[in-house]
Amino acid sequence: MPTVIQKFGGTSLGTPEKIARAARRVADARASGFDVVVVVSAMGHTTDELIALAEGVSPVPDRRELDMVMATGEQVSAGLLAMALRELGVAASSLTGGQAGLRTDGVHGRARITRIESGRLERLLSRAEVAVVAGFQGTSDDGEVTTLGRGGSDTTAVAIAAALRVSDTGGWCEIFTDVDGVYTADPRVVRSAVKLPRISYEEMLELATLGAGVMHARAVLFGEKYGVPIHVRHSQKPDQGTMINRESHAMEELAVVGCALKEDLGRVSLRGIRNAIGLQAGLFTALAQANIVVDDIMQTEQGSTTMLAFTVEHGDLADAKGIVAKTLAELGEGEMNVEVALAKVSAVGVGMKVHAGVASRMFRALAEASIAIHNINTSEIKISCIIDKADGPKALEAVHRAFGLGLGSNATVAMQTDESR
Amino acid sequence: MPTVIQKFGGTSLGTPEKIARAARRVADARASGFDVVVVVSAMGHTTDELIALAEGVSPVPDRRELDMVMATGEQVSAGLLAMALRELGVAASSLTGGQAGLRTDGVHGRARITRIESGRLERLLSRAEVAVVAGFQGTSDDGEVTTLGRGGSDTTAVAIAAALRVSDTGGWCEIFTDVDGVYTADPRVVRSAVKLPRISYEEMLELATLGAGVMHARAVLFGEKYGVPIHVRHSQKPDQGTMINRESHAMEELAVVGCALKEDLGRVSLRGIRNAIGLQAGLFTALAQANIVVDDIMQTEQGSTTMLAFTVEHGDLADAKGIVAKTLAELGEGEMNVEVALAKVSAVGVGMKVHAGVASRMFRALAEASIAIHNINTSEIKISCIIDKADGPKALEAVHRAFGLGLGSNATVAMQTDESR
Repeated sequence: MPTVIQKFGGTSLGTPEKIARAARRVADARASGFDVVVVVSAMGHTTDELIALAEGVSPVPDRRELDMVMATGEQVSAGLLAMALRELGVAASSLTGGQAGLRTDGVHGRARITRIESGRLERLLSRAEVAVVAGFQGTSDDGEVTTLGRGGSDTTAVAIAAALRVSDTGGWCEIFTDVDGVYTADPRVVRSAVKLPRISYEEMLELATLGAGVMHARAVLFGEKYGVPIHVRHSQKPDQGTMINRESHAMEELAVVGCALKEDLGRVSLRGIRNAIGLQAGLFTALAQANIVVDDIMQTEQGSTTMLAFTVEHGDLADAKGIVAKTLAELGEGEMNVEVALAKVSAVGVGMKVHAGVASRMFRALAEASIAIHNINTSEIKISCIIDKADGPKALEAVHRAFGLGLGSNATVAMQTDESR
Repeated sequence: MPTVIQKFGGTSLGTPEKIARAARRVADARASGFDVVVVVSAMGHTTDELIALAEGVSPVPDRRELDMVMATGEQVSAGLLAMALRELGVAASSLTGGQAGLRTDGVHGRARITRIESGRLERLLSRAEVAVVAGFQGTSDDGEVTTLGRGGSDTTAVAIAAALRVSDTGGWCEIFTDVDGVYTADPRVVRSAVKLPRISYEEMLELATLGAGVMHARAVLFGEKYGVPIHVRHSQKPDQGTMINRESHAMEELAVVGCALKEDLGRVSLRGIRNAIGLQAGLFTALAQANIVVDDIMQTEQGSTTMLAFTVEHGDLADAKGIVAKTLAELGEGEMNVEVALAKVSAVGVGMKVHAGVASRMFRALAEASIAIHNINTSEIKISCIIDKADGPKALEAVHRAFGLGLGSNATVAMQTDESR
């Protein structure tokens, strides 16, 4: 019997009514002949409320204890969903992450999954029961409760799918969320954006880190590593969403499958410094230790001096400035320059590997829309441009149109070949 | 080093400020040279909120799943209190009931403790760490989360005290609550009531079941069985409370140590029925299965027919009436009579075993206050009278005065010896 893993996020479980609706979704899958393991997040804003409670007791809560507190959110969801399933006559049992056999490295707050002892899950499935697993958590080898950090529930679902070898059974992993699937661009910004029926792991990874918040990169990476097909779909609609799987031949025909916009970025530049060995290592280690997520890094040399710049989200800007000021004071030279209200527009597609001319097409689209490009950053399968935040929506629209991604446009994009990106 | 078990109830942990205050209390005990294990209830109304959430999903929630949901309340408290302790510089770790080694029989919702595997608690204590245990819960031998039902957190504390043999170390079990200790009568009703410095397990057991809600009978029974001294005291005040331990010689001098009033009772009578074998078993099994707690049972014979009556709290009256009506319909004879707005006034003391005249003194006190007695029920160490609810406070006051228990009265009561109770 094919096994499907269904993951429901916090907004899909926010009220008893929504939990009942999720239960019907699971019951439908059972009725269609699937073995089902469900993975749940904490209800609505529960996690934020628990963190606020902890910070009321201790301004910087101990990580072990915070894990004990936070792990309860998913446990409650799991118990409630199992109740709702039994209410529908579907045999179901909830399990904590530890009970489901999810073992971690024991690093509190951002534990890594080391293995899944899937015996108990398999026993439940063989008894035709639905297992409802509390996501985002596991236990270390010495029985300590650990949480997985950001993207933890998605990662739990994909990891269980890998451990149960769902693709060998003809199954997959379903991520139920509050959007219809993965779009060619954010449909709230670009009206003509269309839903992608499928996308490769690689492309999804780039989009996830570029501001398309549909799925967390960590879970996508796990899916890629173990070849788990991931179906992202709306929790309240029956429609098919987007299937994430390995790069297919059909995909290669498109150079760009999607565009993304990340807003509210700031850029911090260090100018007039010598490019000493260890300069970069020292600065970015200090930023990482302060939990600042650095977006892009740029470096250029001008004569004997170097310009080193990086972008961060606005929320991290104050902390980043402090660290840079300290670095410059230690160096005894150079000056800091800070720009705010920036954005990043990106185009993503595995087709870029074989198609030329993608970059120039993107730059031309931005130029025709009179948008200034402050920085450029590229990878094998994406191109990003830092622009003014005020230009963001217009830029996303222009890039989306330039690659013919929208509703009513020709889906096959004619690419120039006389120029490489 | 003496080991003390400190138990904090939900009202003592209702807010971050209260949790910080509880932590200071624990830190004080550490500073005074005690090894400390803390047992906590869920914060404030958390348990009620979780039950309401469950009932929103399933009108009669599955007991296994309800245990998964409810157990989180105490886990959150434990994590938060451990954080608050670390904030004060006190080494502390929270543990779920299962992590603390509390094993149960696996009956969800009202599990019994089968044993405590105290290895982990002992290791924490030997490392000079405070263990903060989530009360009210344990795990069965196959790792299922189970809750202990009413009085479960008090029972957890006393059971851990027994497992760690705290009295051998010179320690005890402290139950922190929102009252000062055990009083000769409810001080909200009887102004002259005084706090008892000590009371025997037996007396506390009777008082606990007679409406003095300071401690749950189940925990007291555990304390009696394993000889754990229990100190009941106010969580926000430094004063000594009441020590519950084995009957002492000093106690024997007093015939009555306390009085209690239980209000809002109803009485259901079955009249004009034959006293068939199995009648009582059938009726009271049906009531128990409906989770109706029967207070007192009375039976008298009149000629060839029997009158069987019992009291229940008002909240259970409607259900009880339904079951009695069904029983009478099955018998094909008899009639039901229901009285409401009753109360029960009781006097308790191990001294009754040796002192005579206690009953007559109580009846006389009620007669002098013009209070009608509807029923009498006695045990080795208590006398209870069912009266009108409207007479309740007056009756409690009269009985309290008659036994000289109050403030300003002579503490040594002269007993009559010419009459047995």
